[in-house]
Amino acid sequence: MSKYAIGIDFGTESGRALLVDVADGREVATAVHTYANGVIDEKLPGSDVRLDPDWALQDPNDYIETFKQTIPAVLKESGVDPADVIGLGIDFTACTMMPVKADGTPLCMLHKFHANPHAWVKLWKHHAAQPEANKINATAREMSQAWLDRYGGKISSEWFFSKTLQILDEAPEIYEAAERLIEAADWVVWQLTGEETRNSCTAGYKAMWSKREGFPSDEYFKALDPRLEHVIDEKMSRKIIPIGDRAGGLTPQAAAWTGLKPGTAVAIANVDAHVAVPAATVTETGRMVMIMGTSICHMVLGSEEHLVPGICGYVEDGIIPGFFGYEAGQSCVGDHFAWFVEHCVPAAYEGEAQARGLGIHQLLEGKAAALKPGESGLLALDWWNGNRSVLVDVDLTGLLLGATLATKAEEIYRVLIEATAYGTRVIMEAFETHGVPVNEFVCCGGLPERNKLLMQIYADVTGRELKVAASGQTSALGSAMFGAVAAGKEAGGYESIFEAAKTMARLKEETYKPIPEHQKVYDQLYAEYVRLHDYFGRGENNVMKTLKKIRDEVKVS
Amino acid sequence: MSKYAIGIDFGTESGRALLVDVADGREVATAVHTYANGVIDEKLPGSDVRLDPDWALQDPNDYIETFKQTIPAVLKESGVDPADVIGLGIDFTACTMMPVKADGTPLCMLHKFHANPHAWVKLWKHHAAQPEANKINATAREMSQAWLDRYGGKISSEWFFSKTLQILDEAPEIYEAAERLIEAADWVVWQLTGEETRNSCTAGYKAMWSKREGFPSDEYFKALDPRLEHVIDEKMSRKIIPIGDRAGGLTPQAAAWTGLKPGTAVAIANVDAHVAVPAATVTETGRMVMIMGTSICHMVLGSEEHLVPGICGYVEDGIIPGFFGYEAGQSCVGDHFAWFVEHCVPAAYEGEAQARGLGIHQLLEGKAAALKPGESGLLALDWWNGNRSVLVDVDLTGLLLGATLATKAEEIYRVLIEATAYGTRVIMEAFETHGVPVNEFVCCGGLPERNKLLMQIYADVTGRELKVAASGQTSALGSAMFGAVAAGKEAGGYESIFEAAKTMARLKEETYKPIPEHQKVYDQLYAEYVRLHDYFGRGENNVMKTLKKIRDEVKVS
Repeated sequence: MSKYAIGIDFGTESGRALLVDVADGREVATAVHTYANGVIDEKLPGSDVRLDPDWALQDPNDYIETFKQTIPAVLKESGVDPADVIGLGIDFTACTMMPVKADGTPLCMLHKFHANPHAWVKLWKHHAAQPEANKINATAREMSQAWLDRYGGKISSEWFFSKTLQILDEAPEIYEAAERLIEAADWVVWQLTGEETRNSCTAGYKAMWSKREGFPSDEYFKALDPRLEHVIDEKMSRKIIPIGDRAGGLTPQAAAWTGLKPGTAVAIANVDAHVAVPAATVTETGRMVMIMGTSICHMVLGSEEHLVPGICGYVEDGIIPGFFGYEAGQSCVGDHFAWFVEHCVPAAYEGEAQARGLGIHQLLEGKAAALKPGESGLLALDWWNGNRSVLVDVDLTGLLLGATLATKAEEIYRVLIEATAYGTRVIMEAFETHGVPVNEFVCCGGLPERNKLLMQIYADVTGRELKVAASGQTSALGSAMFGAVAAGKEAGGYESIFEAAKTMARLKEETYKPIPEHQKVYDQLYAEYVRLHDYFGRGENNVMKTLKKIRDEVKVS
Repeated sequence: MSKYAIGIDFGTESGRALLVDVADGREVATAVHTYANGVIDEKLPGSDVRLDPDWALQDPNDYIETFKQTIPAVLKESGVDPADVIGLGIDFTACTMMPVKADGTPLCMLHKFHANPHAWVKLWKHHAAQPEANKINATAREMSQAWLDRYGGKISSEWFFSKTLQILDEAPEIYEAAERLIEAADWVVWQLTGEETRNSCTAGYKAMWSKREGFPSDEYFKALDPRLEHVIDEKMSRKIIPIGDRAGGLTPQAAAWTGLKPGTAVAIANVDAHVAVPAATVTETGRMVMIMGTSICHMVLGSEEHLVPGICGYVEDGIIPGFFGYEAGQSCVGDHFAWFVEHCVPAAYEGEAQARGLGIHQLLEGKAAALKPGESGLLALDWWNGNRSVLVDVDLTGLLLGATLATKAEEIYRVLIEATAYGTRVIMEAFETHGVPVNEFVCCGGLPERNKLLMQIYADVTGRELKVAASGQTSALGSAMFGAVAAGKEAGGYESIFEAAKTMARLKEETYKPIPEHQKVYDQLYAEYVRLHDYFGRGENNVMKTLKKIRDEVKVS
């Protein structure tokens, strides 16, 4: 009798359930629920309270509704007997965090706090806590906090304590009322199991925790704000559970929501990017996973601890138990091409695409693919959305160089792709220089499917083979795999994620290998890229910042 | 009884006649003749001989036909009595040169040479003589030729001896058969008057002649090629006649072509750009004339001789008798905006322009005008067609810096305009630093009419008032003015171009004055422009040349 596991992937606008066959990872059924309140960034639901532009909140009811809608749907579509569903895993955007009562009730659900924005879930892309992030970084530097180096020297405004400190600064009554501060990932697992657990992935990547050193000291938190001194013990937990463990079994209530059996195993929560790694077949060192969409998230495992400049962070047990999981990122990839298509593609191209029955990206890809590397004479710096890799500087901006009166749209399109490939090579070289080898790439996300030219360029620029995960929904698959691990071997699942990955995860047959004559040209172009990267990115010419400063002065004048 | 003069302006695709009232410069009638053979750049007329891509020839018959068509047309349209037309002036593109027999017969009209491309007129934009220009420059540097400094240190492939040397290199039989080598400007005056004359403008700007030193030495020409040693005495003339003189009177044959009276005064030939200067009211120092179209030609008069780096050249008596005429240029202005509109404006803008009944340039101008200086955070280097001003380097390419995901087409459009304005400021400052003051600009050409935003930006960036010539055809008007001067005061004309300019040339009332708060921002942006200009333009980072080199290698591989 076949056994099944379900992965639930909580995204920014919707949640998805995927039911897979535990034996071979076959994807049997999937269902998506679009959140009723989506991203709350203008006005609180059910009130007139307006939000500032950088805010982004969510409604925890949407998460519960995702369980209620999608799990019954996949059971129904597949016809699978709930008794054969042995485990459940979830992954979430992060850091997406919320203040709750000791029993798990979100503060925003209490009438008293319903109209207070700080009572709601702060979504990963809530960007209003930059002053708090600045304070966290400055204080850490003053106090020579060693943990700062694990995050490439800088904490993001998106992360857990930036958001926590913003609550304390702007709504001390919410901070006071919050008996628990928790990642939404852990909160939904709590709702399924009745157990409050804390996973090592979000704790490590988003809340400055490490397996060996724990959280930053109370002394450090006190220096940030005396009221924050005991935040870990008062509102969080020092018990952090490694990825791959079982969180608990489904409560009768959760069983009723979902149609699954009470007691069904539920895995410790995970992050959407990180959980994709084993689903992309990677459970060992040397193979970098790239999740390629609007941005790229780069993840690679290391067997040792290495300080790598400008990475997002590294966490022991953060991705796969027993390894240091290293994460880096590029902030502008698919977004870059979308910008170009919206703002820079001439009407004649739209006409040609229509006439030939192609999408505009397809048309551009076709024209760009007909060019040889270096043929356009163009070069770009991929900083349209700043640089969040080795330079970690949001104030850097995009550059295009080499334009002539003969320059065509497809040439610009191609060098924008090339520029993002150089950006990936910079990250790869930073890892390799600091002791974390990258022998090949395994790609997932939307881009690899859509743009073969891009994949070939990445192979040519990096000199590495690019493989592609077979699944189009690697996050949900990864969660289902962890669900099967939480169920354990006796129940028909697996002993470990390594075992699960062997049978449940697969790659596509088609791969992208570097073409030697392209590599030769790209090595030359990359040298020029690096020179411009360092000239504009490392302080020799701060014109990009100066222009932003002038812009800001002009706008208010 | 009113007296009239006719100016004939020989352009790239057509010739134009303008009949004006000598008393006040009133433009009474105009007529245009489009050359039958236009620009010959693919195949020789009447043969199967194909031309290489850089070639650009013309047919001298088209010039004669211009006289035959346009002068009778303006006489007819105006109803003016030919006896009241006292003088005729012509201006021409330059260097546009041709090999002819001693009697003026163009070699291309002889059956023997008809199928030889080198027998035809080499148009100004014939760009196939770069190897010869390189040899001219290298030899001049080796022999420490002082005249090289008058041309900013570099001779163009477009100029007289580059083209002459190409004939000698590639078609020695044509060089041999050419009893005269002559500017088309002087050749058409010869056809009108029966007198071979040589004007100081083309001799000075295009053929390395100066009033004080004459041509380069026979020794220098011999070093270029022994066969070239006596080129001046054998095929040209050392008698160079200053602008403003009378070349002769109309021959009976030319009178028959045109319907004018035999003996009508004809002025010494001029160049289309330079002849516009007095038509823009400028006959004194301190007021720079800008002819603004696809490119900008900058001309200013100086009372003394100054070496200014990177200018096209300066010639005593070259523009206005008694002054040093200084010329500089920007190679890519209107062309730049045309490129942008063709290659980078999204379909939605085309749709909006149509819906609002606007041209696309108008739409962009309107959107760009709503922006404040500095508001976009963008900066560009205006080198889409190289830099032909102070850096004199065709291998430089365009740069756009500061782009973000919020960057819009009108922002790029505006900074491209700003970049060309910075380019003009660089030229202005080069002149001022080296002793040639520029107190205001007088503009003519197509752009001032079409783009008020551009005019205001130029005023704001340079900190100078911009005035605009009243005439829309300043070259033809200037030629008519010189025609009136050639006729002389007794015939109802003028004693000098200074007298003619007082009554025949006018400015529009509307001017563009710098706006102080814009100047303040542009001064900051210009400092950043200059830093990038020097970094990429003066050898510190030769990435633009490296990219061109890679491009060229890739293209042939």
